[in-house]
Amino acid sequence: MSADIVLVDGIAAAQLSVFDRGLHYGDGVFETIACHSGRPRFLPLHLERLVAGCARLGIRPPALESVRAEIEQLAGMQARVLIKLIVTRGAATARGYAPRGDERTTRILLRYPWDEDPSLAREGIRARIAQVKLGESSQLAGIKHLNRLEQVLARSEADPSQAHEALMFSSSGRLISGTMSNVFLVRDNHVTTPRLDVCGVAGVMRRVLLREAERAGAPIEERTLRREDLDAAQGIFLTNARIGIWPVRSLDGRAFTEAPVTRALQELLRPVLQEAHDG
Amino acid sequence: MSADIVLVDGIAAAQLSVFDRGLHYGDGVFETIACHSGRPRFLPLHLERLVAGCARLGIRPPALESVRAEIEQLAGMQARVLIKLIVTRGAATARGYAPRGDERTTRILLRYPWDEDPSLAREGIRARIAQVKLGESSQLAGIKHLNRLEQVLARSEADPSQAHEALMFSSSGRLISGTMSNVFLVRDNHVTTPRLDVCGVAGVMRRVLLREAERAGAPIEERTLRREDLDAAQGIFLTNARIGIWPVRSLDGRAFTEAPVTRALQELLRPVLQEAHDG
Repeated sequence: MSADIVLVDGIAAAQLSVFDRGLHYGDGVFETIACHSGRPRFLPLHLERLVAGCARLGIRPPALESVRAEIEQLAGMQARVLIKLIVTRGAATARGYAPRGDERTTRILLRYPWDEDPSLAREGIRARIAQVKLGESSQLAGIKHLNRLEQVLARSEADPSQAHEALMFSSSGRLISGTMSNVFLVRDNHVTTPRLDVCGVAGVMRRVLLREAERAGAPIEERTLRREDLDAAQGIFLTNARIGIWPVRSLDGRAFTEAPVTRALQELLRPVLQEAHDG
Repeated sequence: MSADIVLVDGIAAAQLSVFDRGLHYGDGVFETIACHSGRPRFLPLHLERLVAGCARLGIRPPALESVRAEIEQLAGMQARVLIKLIVTRGAATARGYAPRGDERTTRILLRYPWDEDPSLAREGIRARIAQVKLGESSQLAGIKHLNRLEQVLARSEADPSQAHEALMFSSSGRLISGTMSNVFLVRDNHVTTPRLDVCGVAGVMRRVLLREAERAGAPIEERTLRREDLDAAQGIFLTNARIGIWPVRSLDGRAFTEAPVTRALQELLRPVLQEAHDG
């Protein structure tokens, strides 16, 4: 389950400068791109979020033609691989938090096997509620930055055999997401998903699903959700760029039968996941 | 202003594994240790906080005898240097946030020049209030972890020539700290400092000052502080392990004359800073 190829600034390498601000401060962003039959899925959406994240942090984005060429090089001839793209502000040119503005962006591409149990999308997963809360920081909300200790701690709370994913609330009690997925609640065939204006990552699969549901005339509502919304939900499902849609079949022991709308949304995404490699 | 010596796991190196979880998630902690005449100041306190941070994150702490020997090696024969010690969970042994438990802790030591303008401690500094808010996450509060994007963004808000430091509030409106310092408010000769139970870093110099003030019979009160406490303050000062005490002479243009108690606390610390290399 380790990466078999790594490119640092376009060159095969297993090492990085010890001065990189990605290490010192988590000063960067990342993407995980699912690649099928040599083709990176939703690449334009991943690159769009990457560039938006860089803009938020004031990081000069990497040359996208180089990134695209390198991703295609790594994805090429592979049936199923995941490519993780990390972009940092680069090696520090001075001590301290303040960027100088003369840093040179670092880009790192790592290729991992994409092995996955397809029964989870069919039969659903076991979820739990994380003890760790997400800090609220609107300047960091939505982007996929490298400050991920809250997710690391949430994943460390319980043995992975107990639950496939953990749902996370923010410090003020908002339902936000899973540790590595976005969350959707179903009630009376109406689907809602948390607004991500105070924390959370705006996932690529979440964005695709919102778009496809809108096109299909059954829009999903983004709003502030709290514990009582979760308690009132008749169905829950999760999305991320790798897994598509995972129905939740139990949450801390509470059982859910799959809502018909969840299955319908899975069907709606099926052709998109197989074909829409252009975004 | 760049490091002249770096040790990675005890070996001179300028590179780190690209799989290190410090890079991927900010999964680690750090210390910045001021060293005078070859001697690392407050080393036991720094190591104590480091070990506490590792415990909070579930990271196996590095062998302290090795860390101590390496710090002394780097500090040796140097009049004034700063040593940054970074400890991460180590290279990932699998993809994803969840630690496997079989990672091998990485320790990195970087030596920087310690050049500083001594007039700032005498004459005071200019401060501003940061726009960026600190997210509240009690599991991460107090420790000096590697998720530092909020500080990076706060430092990026304004040109450093405008202010030496920026004060930060949390998302719920608590006054917490500077970007790289702890904050103290003076009113009627009574000194208070924010409790750090929801966010912020419990600084070594803050701890030393609390201890010394207690010993001197003039204890400093830790409590929840808000905007109105800041507005009511007659004096403000900042601490960190490198600078000792910096009086604030202006905050967003509001001028302060130095409170006598601030000067008294500087005098109280003076012998401690010069002599207490054993903690």
